[in-house]
Amino acid sequence: MATADEFDRAMMQRCLELARRAIGRTAPNPMVGCVIVADGEIVGEGFHPKTGEPHAEVFALQQAGARSRNATLYVNLEPCNHFGRTPPCSQAVVKAGLKRVVVGMVDPNPQVAGKGIATLENAGIEVTVGVEEEACQTLNEAFVHRILNRRPFGILKYAMTLDGKIAATSGHSSWVTGQMSRRRVHQLRTQCDAIVIGGNTVRKDNPELTTHGLSEWQPLRVVMSRNLDLPTLANLWKTEIARTVVFTGLNANSDIQEKLSQQGVEVVNLETTTPAAVMENLYDRGMNTVLWECGGNLAAQAIRQSCVQKVWAFVAPKIIGGEHAPTPIAELGLNQMTDAIPLTRVTWSTIESDLLIEGYLG
Amino acid sequence: MATADEFDRAMMQRCLELARRAIGRTAPNPMVGCVIVADGEIVGEGFHPKTGEPHAEVFALQQAGARSRNATLYVNLEPCNHFGRTPPCSQAVVKAGLKRVVVGMVDPNPQVAGKGIATLENAGIEVTVGVEEEACQTLNEAFVHRILNRRPFGILKYAMTLDGKIAATSGHSSWVTGQMSRRRVHQLRTQCDAIVIGGNTVRKDNPELTTHGLSEWQPLRVVMSRNLDLPTLANLWKTEIARTVVFTGLNANSDIQEKLSQQGVEVVNLETTTPAAVMENLYDRGMNTVLWECGGNLAAQAIRQSCVQKVWAFVAPKIIGGEHAPTPIAELGLNQMTDAIPLTRVTWSTIESDLLIEGYLG
Repeated sequence: MATADEFDRAMMQRCLELARRAIGRTAPNPMVGCVIVADGEIVGEGFHPKTGEPHAEVFALQQAGARSRNATLYVNLEPCNHFGRTPPCSQAVVKAGLKRVVVGMVDPNPQVAGKGIATLENAGIEVTVGVEEEACQTLNEAFVHRILNRRPFGILKYAMTLDGKIAATSGHSSWVTGQMSRRRVHQLRTQCDAIVIGGNTVRKDNPELTTHGLSEWQPLRVVMSRNLDLPTLANLWKTEIARTVVFTGLNANSDIQEKLSQQGVEVVNLETTTPAAVMENLYDRGMNTVLWECGGNLAAQAIRQSCVQKVWAFVAPKIIGGEHAPTPIAELGLNQMTDAIPLTRVTWSTIESDLLIEGYLG
Repeated sequence: MATADEFDRAMMQRCLELARRAIGRTAPNPMVGCVIVADGEIVGEGFHPKTGEPHAEVFALQQAGARSRNATLYVNLEPCNHFGRTPPCSQAVVKAGLKRVVVGMVDPNPQVAGKGIATLENAGIEVTVGVEEEACQTLNEAFVHRILNRRPFGILKYAMTLDGKIAATSGHSSWVTGQMSRRRVHQLRTQCDAIVIGGNTVRKDNPELTTHGLSEWQPLRVVMSRNLDLPTLANLWKTEIARTVVFTGLNANSDIQEKLSQQGVEVVNLETTTPAAVMENLYDRGMNTVLWECGGNLAAQAIRQSCVQKVWAFVAPKIIGGEHAPTPIAELGLNQMTDAIPLTRVTWSTIESDLLIEGYLG
């Protein structure tokens, strides 16, 4: 294999840039971008816009046309090797007569990993693998998690004061953070396929859970309420703005169930209304990324059931106090401070006067 | 007045550097450093080492000797103008024949502010005031607070997890932060005159509250315990390491009181064992800076009684959970998130994987 040089890395970054244009819209597929270079010049570009539409390579090959011959193709994910809704990209690449292919990362699915690359190599194409691999892995971390664990990737987002509260003792919580932080949350929502809250948050905060104009599409709004003790009027029931699903138990209040259905809300009765069961359902709906914007009790349940892989913690420089004021995460059953779950790959940034701390669980 | 140029600022920074050498040892006096410059060269330097010893100007003038004549003197605080344990510095400066004096900040005591400067100006000395003033004010913020409010400056320090807990639900708390953060706390203690905790912290954590070898002196260790329900054996009662005072009520358990006294612990009976009463006592002992390393209940009381001016919040990237796990600050009586106390002049830094957020209340 050839050594990846600076040009290769720059072209792979361009692939990631292209791939990212479809952020939040590709599930259950990954985000993929592709660049074709002939004589040091970009002659074709493409990205996968959404499931059911062609793969990134197809767009790039179309644009490059005859100039694909003897050119180099860059793609952040190993080209597929199977017949799905579209013919395998590996064969399209071979057919177009490319000389070299640079791949960011291999397919995360162990059953097909390397097969697309083998097809290329068998056809005499020079293949370089692993250019900007970390960035490629991070971009598609949710897709990779989905493939490996058969569950969507979960992100827990919360906003707390500098003394660790997500609301005053009264439950009042608007607002913990400043306007720019809340805008950042709207922007983060554009990258997610669903947002989950509990019934308590509906009753207390009556949120909209939309991207507030930052995207044309909206993530699915999900409410977990075992007993369906929900108000019959709520912003989330305005389904002309965005779809809403309520997960509840088998014997939930049928009166409320009917009233929600009349407003276009989908009601799903689960045997157990747990985060794991909800994630299973969302997996079946083809989701990659699920954002938990719930209170401390549901957050704790979600963590215990391995439904949270990443945390976005906003910390506002203010103090509200309260011995029994709600905190971001309720009981995890950890008795010693030495049992605490460490966050890894932690990064932080400032947004106006707030801090945003991001990290991975485990 | 002359304009402060870069040289003036550099010399004032040198004064602050000298002043800082006595950090934690000057109370009830301020930290003061002094530099004398003749023909662009430093000919004398000094700082105030501790109360009862000469002022910074005296050391610098001594060192400069005859070269003080027509020289420039830099000092971060207006020279005193009254006869105390030492004759007024303003007169010593006049007597030494200096040509110019550069002052960082005027005396914070409104009753004497400007009098030292007036003495100098009346003697024909050119005086520049306000060079590096913000840094001068910050260095002596505790002294300034003491003078203006007749109370020591209070700092609340706590360490919490990323989900806002200072301990697990069980109360277990060692350790929230990493070794380097705890070392930083030891270092911060060297700058304080006293450290206050409540009886609960003695019972749960049995802390030492020393600088762990980072200084030769130790801040006074203070325990607040209304009922004196304290163990008779504790690290804080080892008074050969550092002095300890216990504040308690008028009818406290006399048996324990005696056992503590036998170990060299000073027991003070207060009519009301409140943060305000304790701060009054510490003020009378001539303290500038008091560090609150207490739990959430005492921290909330201290804030409500205006005994906290600054917060040092350590945040560790870990999650412990717990609906009723202790948080840094208990009830403040604030019902709406909009009532939260904002922190001002907030700064943050990283210490290994922990974050340290510093800010002022109000």
